[in-house]
Order: sequence, then C-alpha cells, then structure tokens
Amino acid sequence: MDLDLARQLSQENDTKIVLFVMDGLGGLPHPGTGRSELETAHTTRLDMLAKESLCGFTLPVGIGITPGSGPGHLALFGYDPLVYNIGRGVLEAVGIDFDLQPADVAARGNFCTIDDRGLITDRRAGRISTERCAELTEDLRKIDLDGAELFVEPVREHRFVLVLRGDGLTDAVADTDPQKEGVPVPEASSTSAEGDATAALAGKFAKEAKEYLADKAPANQLLLRGFAKRPSWPSMADVFRLRPAAIAHYPMYRGLAKLVGMETLDVGPNIEDSVATLKENWDKFDYFFVHYKYTDSAGEDGDFRRKVQKLEEVDAAIRGIVEMDPDVLMIGGDHSTPAIMAGHSWHPVPFMMRARNTRADACGRFSERALQDGSLGTIPAKEVLPLAMAHAGRLAKYGA
Amino acid sequence: MDLDLARQLSQENDTKIVLFVMDGLGGLPHPGTGRSELETAHTTRLDMLAKESLCGFTLPVGIGITPGSGPGHLALFGYDPLVYNIGRGVLEAVGIDFDLQPADVAARGNFCTIDDRGLITDRRAGRISTERCAELTEDLRKIDLDGAELFVEPVREHRFVLVLRGDGLTDAVADTDPQKEGVPVPEASSTSAEGDATAALAGKFAKEAKEYLADKAPANQLLLRGFAKRPSWPSMADVFRLRPAAIAHYPMYRGLAKLVGMETLDVGPNIEDSVATLKENWDKFDYFFVHYKYTDSAGEDGDFRRKVQKLEEVDAAIRGIVEMDPDVLMIGGDHSTPAIMAGHSWHPVPFMMRARNTRADACGRFSERALQDGSLGTIPAKEVLPLAMAHAGRLAKYGA
Repeated sequence: MDLDLARQLSQENDTKIVLFVMDGLGGLPHPGTGRSELETAHTTRLDMLAKESLCGFTLPVGIGITPGSGPGHLALFGYDPLVYNIGRGVLEAVGIDFDLQPADVAARGNFCTIDDRGLITDRRAGRISTERCAELTEDLRKIDLDGAELFVEPVREHRFVLVLRGDGLTDAVADTDPQKEGVPVPEASSTSAEGDATAALAGKFAKEAKEYLADKAPANQLLLRGFAKRPSWPSMADVFRLRPAAIAHYPMYRGLAKLVGMETLDVGPNIEDSVATLKENWDKFDYFFVHYKYTDSAGEDGDFRRKVQKLEEVDAAIRGIVEMDPDVLMIGGDHSTPAIMAGHSWHPVPFMMRARNTRADACGRFSERALQDGSLGTIPAKEVLPLAMAHAGRLAKYGA
Repeated sequence: MDLDLARQLSQENDTKIVLFVMDGLGGLPHPGTGRSELETAHTTRLDMLAKESLCGFTLPVGIGITPGSGPGHLALFGYDPLVYNIGRGVLEAVGIDFDLQPADVAARGNFCTIDDRGLITDRRAGRISTERCAELTEDLRKIDLDGAELFVEPVREHRFVLVLRGDGLTDAVADTDPQKEGVPVPEASSTSAEGDATAALAGKFAKEAKEYLADKAPANQLLLRGFAKRPSWPSMADVFRLRPAAIAHYPMYRGLAKLVGMETLDVGPNIEDSVATLKENWDKFDYFFVHYKYTDSAGEDGDFRRKVQKLEEVDAAIRGIVEMDPDVLMIGGDHSTPAIMAGHSWHPVPFMMRARNTRADACGRFSERALQDGSLGTIPAKEVLPLAMAHAGRLAKYGA
C-alpha cells in the first residue's frame, strides 16, 4: 500500500500494535546438522505463538536483494525502502541521536591508517577505541571552516560523523573513501556543480584534519562517505494515524525510528529492559517497535551457537510482551543474517502475526521450514503494517 | 497485466469463459467449531470441481485492503481497482440502473435530521422507508435549476441519487456531508475553479430542498457526497476481444458490468434463474459474469448458518453451469465477508479455475484451508481474467 492510500484509509481506534524485531532473524541450515538457527533453538513459546498466528515470511526489499539496516526497518514501518532511501551520513548521524537540521549535510567518517607513501593500509585504523575516537573528534571540531558550522561526533571505534551546517550546502559530494586498501585517499570533489561549495568545505576539513592527525597513528588519516541531507518524510502519525514509540537501545535503530516520527523511549540493553519499558509506556502509545539486536550480532560474527542462544533468550522473555495482550503482535526480522554467511542476506525472513480474525494456519513451529505451511506466504515487508492495521480495525474500506 | 498489454495480446476464438462470483465468498473460522463457512458447508460438487481445478486465492485490491463492491468486481473483470476507480455518486447511479450520460455529474444523497440550531442529529434521518424516500425525491425533482436538468432518484431508505445534467459541469465539488453528527451541514463549494458552476447548482438545489424539507422531519435536510462523472473506460470488447454478458439481478452489479461494456441480461433473483439465463444466452456471448449475492448478504448480517446454507444452495445449482461445459470456469468471490465479522474484509478470497492445460493440484476441497495446497497461491484478482484468457487460447505469445 502506498502512503497516499494509507493516509486515505487509516483511522484511529484504541487498539495496540506491537512489532518485535529480532535483527537478522532469518538463517540457513548448519552444514553439520542440516538445521537452521531457529530449527536448532528450543523455542517453546515462539512455537506456541506460531500455532495461534498467521505465519509466513517477509521479503525486505525485493527478491535477491540484501538489505542494510535502514531499508530492512523502514519496510517493516510501512515505508517502501526503494522509495524512502537515506544516505549513509544521515543514518550515522541519526544513529547517534544527533539533532540533524534540514539544511545540514552529514557524512560517515572512518579514521584510517596510511603509510609513508600516503596509501591506505587499514581502513579502520586498527579499530581504535571509542574513547580514542572521541578525543580525536573533539580536536577536529576546532577546524575553522570560514563561517560554516562544523560538527565532528564520535560513533564507535574508528567511526565518526561529520556534519556541515551553513547556507546552500548540498549532498552532491563524492566519497573520499575508496572502499579498499593500498590506494591513496581521494580528495573531496563534487558530483555536480551545485556540490562545489560543500565539496570545498569537506576538502578544507579533510586537509586540515590530515595535518592534525599526522602524528596520531594508527589513526593518521580519515575517509568520508555517504554525504547526505536529512529526508523530510511523512510521519507514521500523519500517514497511519498511530502514536508510535520505539523501544530500541542502539542509536541506529532509534535514529531510523525518528525518521518516521516515532518517539524513542529510554531503554537498557537487555530484552528484560525492553519488556519493562513496554509495560511502563503501554498506555501512552498505540504502536510499539521493539528492537532486539543480538541475533544479528551473533549472525554477523558467524557464531551459529550464540545466535541459537540469543533466539532462546528471546523465547524466554517474549512472555512479557505476550502477557500485555496487544491486539496485534508481529514477530519478525529486518533481514536474514545466516550465521554460516556471517553477514546480512537476501533470504525471506520468518514472520508471524497474532491477531483477531486470522485464518487458521498449519504451522506448528516458528522456523524457516515450518513457516512454509503458513497461509501468509511470502509478502513484501512493507505490507506488514497495513496488514496489522487491517487486523486492528484501523483501515477503512476502499471504494464503495 | 495492464490493459495496453492485454489489448496487444488478446485474440478471438470460439471458447466460452464463465466467471461465477459468490459475493463475499471468503470466511473465517467460527469460534465454536474452528471451521469457516466453506469448511462447515456440505459442498460435494464444489469439492469435486476443486479436485479438477487450479486452486488458490485472489487478493482483490492489496494486502490488508478491504474492498467495496466496486473494486472487488472490477478486479475480477481484469481492471486494476487502484487505477479504475469510480466515485460514490456514479456507483449509486449505475446501481439503480440510472442511464448516466458522459457529461452528467452524480452525487450520493442522504436525507438527514437537523435540530433547531441546524446541527445534524441523525445522518440517516432514522432510516426513513424507501417509500417515504421516493415521495420526497419526487417533490425535489420540481426544483428549478435555471436550465440545468435535474434528476433526484430514490435508492433505499434514506439514500438517493442526485444527477445534474448540463453543459460544462464537473465533479470538482466538495461533499456537503461532514460524515459526523453534532455539526452543521456545510454549504456546497467547489474544490477548484472549474467546479464553481456545478457547486453553484448543487448549492441552489440544497438551499431550496432545505426549505421544502423544513417540515418533513425526521427527513428535514439532506447531505451530498461523492460528486462524480461516469468514467470513460476501455470496454472488455476493446481490450480482451470478448463478447461479455452479465447475469446479475442486483442493480449495483449490473451497473458495474456496464461500466466495462458488458451487456446485462434480464434475470430473476434466484440462482436457478441465473442458470436458465446462462443457458438461453449461451450462443450469443463468449464471456459470462454470473453474480450470486446471498453469500454476502448472510455474511453482512453476521448469519454464519445462513451463509453456510447459501453456499450449499450454490453447490446444488452449480451443476447447471458445469454441464454447459465452459472452456474456462472460474469460481470465486469479489471479497471476503466473514460472518463472524459481519462485514467485508481484506482476507484473500477462495478461487478455482477449471480449464484445459492446468497443472495438477492437491486440493481435495473448496475451502480456505484446503486451497492453501493449491498451486496457484494467492494472486491479484485483476490477473484472473488474463489467466482465463490464456487457458482459453485467447492470448498470443509475448515477444518473438
């Protein structure tokens, strides 16, 4: 459903919708056992929920497309990720709760290591500590850009955000990150004439930073990529008439939630913290996005066993969400991160929805194999919110 | 398939295609038994057909979208309901067999009740009788609109159709129905300059009607909405090279069929009448849309048992259609109307197609659960006509 139609059909009521996202949920069979992470984990409660739910898979962006965190989540929030696209710089900035203004241009920065000849030897500067990153960025803020305002904010390890604030700045600036080692760092350049002024500022910053960093090895140079401006998107309140809240500990997911107008609630790192926050705020909102990071982290690390453990951790804690008895409870993921691939993948993602007025399903388990018997089939991830809205009685009839 | 491509590929031959629509066919499990209407009904013949058919579901408009009667049928006729949209006024007019001209502007009217202060207290005037509605509309026809022709036609209870006929009229007129009570009736106004003349006529009609109705409580005022002109769409003859006929008793469905260029045949209210009309006209057409209303009526009334009975009534009579041995027989619905919801819903609709050259299916029954084993899966309803055309040998190869 496109947002114009959603805006036309959406109506308010007093139902509650919960979207619980296990980041990187989908998996692949372990070659030793032939069973995926979900098929290996003991997940009694999730399996029980599957028996009561509408079951199937979500396709985050499209067939064969491996999504980043942004597209994977935006789709689940009802926004077509091929239409609502955000630059890397913006994703990093919102990811650290930076208050990005509409005219700002943000870029993702890496501290890196170059050798005597100026060739990149390590794009991540040996993953310097976050503390060291913060010291360096604090000094880089002192660079004078002739009137334009400058923000240099640490993210984590070698990663930082550069924000340029001033009149007439644009995102038409090429990356200075060649995305490989053994080559020099390109100078800042514009991709069209309207980016000239911004590229000049980025170039001045890079040049002065290089001088300052000369004796700071391993972080003796920096790379910039994904110059971007904050998009101005319709909010979930505007489109879907929801009061949405995000329960996410990691800044990246809080940032994504903010881009669609969610209120971000303070929450600790553990799933028990998320459940507690959900309960405390139950009466204040009618849509909750609850994010669980560690399934993805384990998958990214290629740690099959830890991903299984994290799934079992979710299974133990999910009861706290179920007992709030939301009108619609969606359990799924933003993309697959099969441990055997140690990275994001394009595979459809397990999904189930417990709500009134679902057809009886034949799924006895919440796993890649069992969900194939679900009546939902594989649907675009951007359709799960409209479907949830329908089951919550929040969508009016289309046409007379 | 969009209509341009359909026009390019369609070719004539002497096959017969029948679309049998059980209005509101799809259902949901009864909480007492866990079985849907179709799963409860004894439908030996439909089940036998399912064993010989390509089986699955149709999605009328989109995931989560509850269709009105218009979009649900237009999709089955091959017209994308998000593209081929009709205004409420037109639907009401065609729904009473009013012969709407291309230049006419039609609006849906409600008689309503206002209090001493002019605030709406009942948008439906206590649902006055259809007879009373007819008396009032007859008098309202006498209003003089300075040259423009005026039609005021009763529909049912408090509902009527207003048609304005004259040169240069447009549908750029705002509703005078605020869709809520406790507020005054807005005056007619245009939504753009080109609607000014039409809005002035609508305003004059509303003003004089108000004076006339002043002492006719509870119907002492009226509301107008959905100003619309008859769309000029390509016909099924033009696009699909079919000679299509509609066998539908209710005016609404006859009207929808007319919008896509079907010839509407005279037919009585019962399914036996439909079968007889089909047989009588068998040689004159090559596409028949046969409409059965009562599954929807029972569902809308929340009468699970009656819906079951109506399905069994269809099962008994379907033999008369089957024995005509159409080259393609489609059996489905325009949308779901689960009795437990007592209204239209967004759920995919059971569908089967018996034809030459279908793949073997695994469905032993025509029911929501059994059809999940069908090889068709869930397809957009607008694709069933192209699929039927293919099985009838009426679609040429695409590309060399």
